[in-house]
Amino acid sequence: MKILDCTLRDGGYYTNWDFKPALVETYFRAMQQLPIEYLEIGYRSRELANYLGQYFYCPEYVLENARRLTDKKLAVILNQKDFPVSDVKEVLVPVKDYLDLVRVAVNPDNFDEALILATELKSHGFKVAFNVMYMSSWSENGAFIKELPRTAGLVDYFYMVDSFGGVFPGDIKQTIKMVRNETDVALGFHGHNNLELGLINTLTAIEEGVEIVDATITGMGRGAGNLKTELLLTALNAKHELDVNFNALTSVVEAFEQLQSQHGWGTNLPYMVSGANSLPQKDVMEWVTRRFYSFNSIIRALQNRKKGSQDNEKLPIFEQSSSYQNVLIVGGGPNAVDHAEAIKHWIGKQESVAIVHASSKNAKHYEELADTPQFFCLVGSEGHRLEKVFDQMVDFKGQCILPPYPREMGTYIPSALSGKSNELKEVTFTKVNKDTHTVLAIQAAIDLGATQVFMVGYDGYMEGNISQQEKSLSEENELVFKDFSDIAENSIVSLTPTNYKGLDVQSVYGKLV
Amino acid sequence: MKILDCTLRDGGYYTNWDFKPALVETYFRAMQQLPIEYLEIGYRSRELANYLGQYFYCPEYVLENARRLTDKKLAVILNQKDFPVSDVKEVLVPVKDYLDLVRVAVNPDNFDEALILATELKSHGFKVAFNVMYMSSWSENGAFIKELPRTAGLVDYFYMVDSFGGVFPGDIKQTIKMVRNETDVALGFHGHNNLELGLINTLTAIEEGVEIVDATITGMGRGAGNLKTELLLTALNAKHELDVNFNALTSVVEAFEQLQSQHGWGTNLPYMVSGANSLPQKDVMEWVTRRFYSFNSIIRALQNRKKGSQDNEKLPIFEQSSSYQNVLIVGGGPNAVDHAEAIKHWIGKQESVAIVHASSKNAKHYEELADTPQFFCLVGSEGHRLEKVFDQMVDFKGQCILPPYPREMGTYIPSALSGKSNELKEVTFTKVNKDTHTVLAIQAAIDLGATQVFMVGYDGYMEGNISQQEKSLSEENELVFKDFSDIAENSIVSLTPTNYKGLDVQSVYGKLV
Repeated sequence: MKILDCTLRDGGYYTNWDFKPALVETYFRAMQQLPIEYLEIGYRSRELANYLGQYFYCPEYVLENARRLTDKKLAVILNQKDFPVSDVKEVLVPVKDYLDLVRVAVNPDNFDEALILATELKSHGFKVAFNVMYMSSWSENGAFIKELPRTAGLVDYFYMVDSFGGVFPGDIKQTIKMVRNETDVALGFHGHNNLELGLINTLTAIEEGVEIVDATITGMGRGAGNLKTELLLTALNAKHELDVNFNALTSVVEAFEQLQSQHGWGTNLPYMVSGANSLPQKDVMEWVTRRFYSFNSIIRALQNRKKGSQDNEKLPIFEQSSSYQNVLIVGGGPNAVDHAEAIKHWIGKQESVAIVHASSKNAKHYEELADTPQFFCLVGSEGHRLEKVFDQMVDFKGQCILPPYPREMGTYIPSALSGKSNELKEVTFTKVNKDTHTVLAIQAAIDLGATQVFMVGYDGYMEGNISQQEKSLSEENELVFKDFSDIAENSIVSLTPTNYKGLDVQSVYGKLV
Repeated sequence: MKILDCTLRDGGYYTNWDFKPALVETYFRAMQQLPIEYLEIGYRSRELANYLGQYFYCPEYVLENARRLTDKKLAVILNQKDFPVSDVKEVLVPVKDYLDLVRVAVNPDNFDEALILATELKSHGFKVAFNVMYMSSWSENGAFIKELPRTAGLVDYFYMVDSFGGVFPGDIKQTIKMVRNETDVALGFHGHNNLELGLINTLTAIEEGVEIVDATITGMGRGAGNLKTELLLTALNAKHELDVNFNALTSVVEAFEQLQSQHGWGTNLPYMVSGANSLPQKDVMEWVTRRFYSFNSIIRALQNRKKGSQDNEKLPIFEQSSSYQNVLIVGGGPNAVDHAEAIKHWIGKQESVAIVHASSKNAKHYEELADTPQFFCLVGSEGHRLEKVFDQMVDFKGQCILPPYPREMGTYIPSALSGKSNELKEVTFTKVNKDTHTVLAIQAAIDLGATQVFMVGYDGYMEGNISQQEKSLSEENELVFKDFSDIAENSIVSLTPTNYKGLDVQSVYGKLV
């Protein structure tokens, strides 16, 4: 039984495939002393759009450096769907001497194409592994399994990949039986950890005769992550007397734990739900790490996918008979409270004004303005917050605005407000995700006929003292402001202090002089 | 099948059984909407030494508050070894109306006493569960299993507790078979998560007919923690259509995750090693959360326990022919570098002085003092650091001092220094853990005959900007300074700035005038 560690390759999803040289050296130095057969260090690919770092492309000097640091076997992986057969010659053959194994990530639907790619790889003398995805769906969607005999002579390892992290030990046994009926190719297993089943699934696979298994240090890997290399080694050390150098192991675990405290990989409730129900974790990963959604919204979106869209009610379209020259958008930042008195004075001086609450957080401070129309943006689980802010919804004077149908994050409307809620017809000014507070608020301002949009409580964040999540939210909002400015120059301005770049600032106090 | 959530009881190990009222309310409100049968909210006990918080004692008003917040069944647990039978009347009977279940934590060695306690509990009409520990050792140490028929009529649930977190699904099946041979009492299972086997073990137990299982939100619990309630519910929701309110579940998970970011429960490499080898995690928990040991030292200590003490070499005793009036202890803080020039001038002016490096971190800055005897304290894996600091150990002039034999954290001595290393005979001035840098350094100063001990590089930490680990280290050092001052007044003083309370400070510059 062999172990393949793919920390750099699978962990790259969190770092855009860039790792600091000192960490890479710690990694190779430790691996050198551990009972690991293969190190998969990245992808190889011709140039793709967007920035992808050094272990996504593995240029020759990177492979050379890896070879200098270790004499373990080296592997890279290809995405079959992005890798034309003709690229083998151009992208792989020149670095053939560095590569002990080329793995191919295969969607079962493309099994025929994958075999053609394997044929080409073999013709150049590469050792080839297939990593075939979506193992939990093979019992329904496993037509390719009948084709497995065609892998003979082309594929050295046939990996079963638990893409969703939802496979149980019993499923492993069944799937292996199903595969073994067709072929005696050497088997591999790549497990994810959504349900914390990475270890038991892998040990079960080993018991059932699988010859190679994957793991990553601290489980670093896409979404919920993988079986932890340190857990596998510890279990094999205790149960099967595998010799493990725990000094080497701890050094590399401690190094990656520092990175983990920044990126926060590992399972959590949304990943558990996606795993348990075999829902793709790509979106979940984006929601969890890059966007500003609560677990509640994410779980709702996942439940929607699982059940169909019964939670996704079509609402009347938001259409206003009267239009408002000025629209004030109130964000969730403290400045909307700190300067509330001045802002209310300013509103009193406007002839044609409406308020759009991008977040309900500060809305209570504006409740007294009974004569000013007020609109509340309901994104994801914002309806729950609204209920908390206004404990007596019976007196609620505002109207609610929701994103255009269908809403990925569902439709939660406090029951008292069901007659007061509309959805936008469409988002016209930006391509940024329509289910965000700021996009919804600005589109509402447009639909209200605003010629001038004023923002308060868009404080932004101080550089340096900002989480990854806040940074993403901040960058997303800046993009939204820019998209709006592009179609309507000078029409958006903050009246309270802001750290947002590209957002013009004036002072609410100056306007009161 | 029933679920018992014991978040407050088992999580209390991390918070000293105090939880903020808002968190407790969030907890009860969520539990109310989840398919959980019992809530075990804490211990009941007569007063013990040291501070233990409200959910350790569960005074009546706490139970009353819980009853007001939920109509779920309430449980408390007793430690049989700390709970005399006579206390049932005094400690439990007065609050009988609040308690739907009394659990008893039982060491298999005390099974007879536990039965006597159960008899008393039953005589007062309590529903009783036994939580019998150390399940992984029952196959060797399971004499009590023959006594199981005696539980009839006394014990409502017989829980198997995977105390070390090292049990595998196959062990669950075997143990249940062993128990079922003797009794048909209703079974329970309490799993730990050291090897991330909490879920699969619990699901296996359920398949094998266990009637009640434990879990805690976010797995909060002693050491590596427990099966996560959210993971169990998600799996049962997906696989067995258990109805789960995911809004309620996410609200309580998010609330406890905030607490987790402070306390950091969950598994890690030391807990994995202790679990895989059935070693008690009590010490590991202390090492990980309260003391300043690297994973390396902890793993070494665990490996020592596993293998016997082959890593625990007896060294020649540290005895000095010459004595030194002044001993300078160099700590790891930046001040030992920032003021190094002044400190070296001061050393040059002393007639009788030796240097003790409590940490090797700053030692390189004092290497040039070839005429001053220098001693290096080797605690845990400090030998590895020493090797990094002095890359050419051949020229190394110092001597090494290790704690008295036997050393829990092992004996790592760089091979070049094996002839230059001694161990202390004993620690005479304090009861604080002998395997700490500061205790070792001060005892070395005593053994060197110092009448005056000077410290540099003991910077301490700024209040408010300090981790739990730094706070513990800091408090421990202050206790050590106090113990030393108590036996030798005015003999310890810092020559560089320090945040340590109770450590006198003078200025190295004043001494150079």
